[in-house]
Amino acid sequence: MTSSLRFRVRYAETDAMGVAHHSNYIIWFEMGRVTWMDEIGLPYIEIEADGIYLVVSKIELTYRRAARFDEELVLKTTLVELKSRRIRFVYQLENSSGDLVAEGATEHIPTNTEHRTVMVSESIRRALEPWVSR
Amino acid sequence: MTSSLRFRVRYAETDAMGVAHHSNYIIWFEMGRVTWMDEIGLPYIEIEADGIYLVVSKIELTYRRAARFDEELVLKTTLVELKSRRIRFVYQLENSSGDLVAEGATEHIPTNTEHRTVMVSESIRRALEPWVSR
Amino acid sequence: MTSSLRFRVRYAETDAMGVAHHSNYIIWFEMGRVTWMDEIGLPYIEIEADGIYLVVSKIELTYRRAARFDEELVLKTTLVELKSRRIRFVYQLENSSGDLVAEGATEHIPTNTEHRTVMVSESIRRALEPWVSR
Amino acid sequence: MTSSLRFRVRYAETDAMGVAHHSNYIIWFEMGRVTWMDEIGLPYIEIEADGIYLVVSKIELTYRRAARFDEELVLKTTLVELKSRRIRFVYQLENSSGDLVAEGATEHIPTNTEHRTVMVSESIRRALEPWVSR
Repeated sequence: MTSSLRFRVRYAETDAMGVAHHSNYIIWFEMGRVTWMDEIGLPYIEIEADGIYLVVSKIELTYRRAARFDEELVLKTTLVELKSRRIRFVYQLENSSGDLVAEGATEHIPTNTEHRTVMVSESIRRALEPWVSR
Repeated sequence: MTSSLRFRVRYAETDAMGVAHHSNYIIWFEMGRVTWMDEIGLPYIEIEADGIYLVVSKIELTYRRAARFDEELVLKTTLVELKSRRIRFVYQLENSSGDLVAEGATEHIPTNTEHRTVMVSESIRRALEPWVSR
Repeated sequence: MTSSLRFRVRYAETDAMGVAHHSNYIIWFEMGRVTWMDEIGLPYIEIEADGIYLVVSKIELTYRRAARFDEELVLKTTLVELKSRRIRFVYQLENSSGDLVAEGATEHIPTNTEHRTVMVSESIRRALEPWVSR
Repeated sequence: MTSSLRFRVRYAETDAMGVAHHSNYIIWFEMGRVTWMDEIGLPYIEIEADGIYLVVSKIELTYRRAARFDEELVLKTTLVELKSRRIRFVYQLENSSGDLVAEGATEHIPTNTEHRTVMVSESIRRALEPWVSR
């Protein structure tokens, strides 16, 4: 399952090069994950309510073209790996012409609220399992 | 007591106008408060360890001149009001020539970690009291 | 004319108090202005294309209640003053129950791209004039 | 040559997990590059004054442990690759006990201010060359 999130670049997200600062893509990826989880019916907020954080352990990101203020972007998010101690999402960010703006991946480790690694609970695992793209 | 914090504008803080985005001044004021509390010997982290948040209830900010990437700024922070349910800081932000870049004030309400208003505890009050500038 | 922007609090916008960090409201107000200008048919991007920046000169902001991750907020933006060298917007931020989350105002000075104050051009003035709420 | 930048985590950089939000590491890496270039005597601001942007084309980042508000961190930055159309920095972020907090790399493509790829100018190349760690 690939979710799709459409949004526009905020002015505050631009930098002195006149384009979106590269750190914002990390925040957009996070918005992509939130959208993905909403769409499969397991909002991220419910996972945290269960005392689980999906902490980011790794990021890979390749920038293909700049994005400007007010430009509309589409972020496609896919869960590609689900292990007991690691999950992995991949992302494609496109502009409204369908050109690739950036692509990347994030890996996450489930922890408790004390930031200690735990296993993905059986109920979360069962909720995610049907939606993994392999 | 007025604390003084010297820092340089980050690239990520600039926007497409080529200057520091105006939202960052709010974050700098927060850094000013942290510095002020460090200097009087009551680090903000200890207040939170006591279960108290000093929640921002009000901001006033006047921008005088733009600040550019890598520019060195000096932030002067002063506590000017200390009541049982409200404290008020004022700020002067200057560039390295001593020109005023911005000035403002923030007000804070003590809350518990459930975000319910509480009174400033007696021990915090006693620690702050000698340093209020009136 | 009051524009209305509906959005959800991003995870990256939260802080260690578990609520949206107060600096983000400034960024949301900016989004409110962008929406307002889109709605009257004068996108902010066109003003900048004309070589004019609407630089923020002043902010007033009162926080009424905290906003949490994923909470849906509605931002109402109104232009209340239009002078040759100053414009003023006011904002009401509400949660989905209609409770006031924050309210505030921003003032703006038109400058050229060298950050020198200029007068609002006649064409911009004429485009904004019918939409001022007094 | 490895530069070393010491800084403390800002409150605004924390998130609802109570630790520094993972997007900030990207901004810290940028601060590391700025420090590295200051130390070799070629401030980044001079590169931009020459009409060159060192656009981020790629990021790899592995998070090892969380960083909390007010924690002091040390960022070590090294230039490890210098080609006519690509440069690569690596980073080690440590806490004050010397434990690894994160490590990563960024790649950069020189562009002109129109965001078109250019070659690193001969003068920039000559300034950087002696400081590459291989």
